[in-house]
Amino acid sequence: MIADVIAAVRERAPLVHCLSAAVSLNFVADAVLAAGARPMMTETLEEAPVMVQAADALLVNLGTLSTDGAAGIPATAARARELGTPWVLDPTAVGLAPVRTPLARHLLTHRPAVIRGNASEILNLAGAGTGGRGADTVHVPEQAAHSAHLLALATHAVVAVSGARDLITDGERSVAVTAGHPLLTRVTGTGCTLGALTAACAAVADPFEAAHAATAWLCVAAEDAAGAAAGPGSFKVALLDALAAVDPHAVEERALA
Amino acid sequence: MIADVIAAVRERAPLVHCLSAAVSLNFVADAVLAAGARPMMTETLEEAPVMVQAADALLVNLGTLSTDGAAGIPATAARARELGTPWVLDPTAVGLAPVRTPLARHLLTHRPAVIRGNASEILNLAGAGTGGRGADTVHVPEQAAHSAHLLALATHAVVAVSGARDLITDGERSVAVTAGHPLLTRVTGTGCTLGALTAACAAVADPFEAAHAATAWLCVAAEDAAGAAAGPGSFKVALLDALAAVDPHAVEERALA
Amino acid sequence: MIADVIAAVRERAPLVHCLSAAVSLNFVADAVLAAGARPMMTETLEEAPVMVQAADALLVNLGTLSTDGAAGIPATAARARELGTPWVLDPTAVGLAPVRTPLARHLLTHRPAVIRGNASEILNLAGAGTGGRGADTVHVPEQAAHSAHLLALATHAVVAVSGARDLITDGERSVAVTAGHPLLTRVTGTGCTLGALTAACAAVADPFEAAHAATAWLCVAAEDAAGAAAGPGSFKVALLDALAAVDPHAVEERALA
Repeated sequence: MIADVIAAVRERAPLVHCLSAAVSLNFVADAVLAAGARPMMTETLEEAPVMVQAADALLVNLGTLSTDGAAGIPATAARARELGTPWVLDPTAVGLAPVRTPLARHLLTHRPAVIRGNASEILNLAGAGTGGRGADTVHVPEQAAHSAHLLALATHAVVAVSGARDLITDGERSVAVTAGHPLLTRVTGTGCTLGALTAACAAVADPFEAAHAATAWLCVAAEDAAGAAAGPGSFKVALLDALAAVDPHAVEERALA
Repeated sequence: MIADVIAAVRERAPLVHCLSAAVSLNFVADAVLAAGARPMMTETLEEAPVMVQAADALLVNLGTLSTDGAAGIPATAARARELGTPWVLDPTAVGLAPVRTPLARHLLTHRPAVIRGNASEILNLAGAGTGGRGADTVHVPEQAAHSAHLLALATHAVVAVSGARDLITDGERSVAVTAGHPLLTRVTGTGCTLGALTAACAAVADPFEAAHAATAWLCVAAEDAAGAAAGPGSFKVALLDALAAVDPHAVEERALA
Repeated sequence: MIADVIAAVRERAPLVHCLSAAVSLNFVADAVLAAGARPMMTETLEEAPVMVQAADALLVNLGTLSTDGAAGIPATAARARELGTPWVLDPTAVGLAPVRTPLARHLLTHRPAVIRGNASEILNLAGAGTGGRGADTVHVPEQAAHSAHLLALATHAVVAVSGARDLITDGERSVAVTAGHPLLTRVTGTGCTLGALTAACAAVADPFEAAHAATAWLCVAAEDAAGAAAGPGSFKVALLDALAAVDPHAVEERALA
């Protein structure tokens, strides 16, 4: 299943529209390309809702939310919903931030296929949190498991909680991914990248399988990259190489091990 | 000729004002520095038309066009034209996008020295296209050769069409560059980078020679980088190293081979 | 002293709010993470002054100043001042630029703990300069030593002037750092990164020690990175690895040698 999703992304090269944090825009685009999909990043109200028509999936990430992004995101998500294009909500740093916190709640009405965040973000979005610190979590996924379950039931979205042990649930089924590496937390944009990979996979598979495959893909690639790295800089470079190189069946075996 | 242009960029270190896509701003700036030139990236209406006065060349790239960029670009290109500063138009993703498509046509009135794009973008700008997919082309340069020729005659600009076989024409002379590597399409920002290198070369040479030298420089550096790379991540790093290291005479010989 | 500051950053992992140039946002965030601190990059007027409440230090860098940044920066710096949160002003490209030049002067009223720039920027801010070229300096730190001294006395800030020989003064004490490598000038964002490291250090030490430790940290890491690099691309990757790996005591010994 995981292997089929990865192979399908590489074969079909879906166009993934990414409305994502300025801080990691470049890395997210490179990761989408390394995975075999194709990125598109325009975020303005004037262009993004039109350009999403060409996309096979959409990522909405609220990190470093610009004025352009805040204006363009709601209309683009609404258009994706109308078109039946699957979209992923990554509610980066909800909680303290006064614009993105209500925006994230509003976006739930446009029915994301997947909601992806760290434990603090998922707790906040579910109304049970008390804030992370910036984009960092102060909780582990297990603490957000109940909230993730309730959020999935309430929104009909798959909810993916990233951390040392990633949790994915649609309110009925749940899976965990234990692969990964601590260096993922020492470089910018790996959460955004997981959101973009999830969108790429959602273009070719159902949302639960997509979230599972994307998480496994990134986590196994991170293990390979860490083996080739001398620190966070070379890890980031090697992560792109590994996203491109990793064998789909190896991802499936290692993610389930 | 190619060797002389590259050597002149490294010797004179022209200041290249880049109004370029947010997604690849950092890579473009690093590539300009690696090539031996110097980048400047401010795009607002309040500052860009003033700062372009210090520049030796200007790049206008319409990828991920922000509200700041849409406001600042026309006045900055107009100012460059008044100053006689050579400027390069990179009409990224024209076609579907509702703001940048008419903007690109309007900018032609400010007389770019070089228009650089992929085949779909050149076809669209020439009025003959039916749209790429985001920033990707759905055509090869040969299909855009006639449109490139007509566009060059109509605008008095050099037109450079990138692809597996790059074509460059001023409406009278034409050259092709066959060097390059498929990994150029697996990382973000190589088109933007080619635009910036073209601007750097246009600061020290006539537009036709500049487009030819910049294309050869990037394509030969890409071949060297691919030889040192394990995937798209390490390719991108090695591409910067190769832009700095490659011998100008080797570029000339290998580009013409 | 230097060693203690570096060790404290790694131990306490301060949250550093960075309002920084779009061109190097990603590298700055990665450098902050590599150093052991944590970055936060939101710049809008709506969110940045609220989010700075969670931060342990603030960097305000005026490079590629966006409309969002120009709106959000004054209120965020004012809020940091009210909270007693140390903040660093990096007046990138002041001089020619018509918005950031008066903005930088205005921001001095919000009492930055450290002002960090190249020689041309410090000369301009002190009212003695005639402009750099974009973000580049046309002066060496020694030429700005007197202006730096006067600026420190007038603003009660530590003033750090970067260059081949970095100068740091609070108007009474002065130190120089001779470590470093010319490749620091061949990649984008090393000045912004020095500002962010200075902010990280100012979260755990007094401003003079912070500026000294951050300068030494970056310069010694650059020497290690240059030894591992084949050009500017691999230097940049190795610089992140070295920021993470370098021993605090080695930084202190080598910076003072």
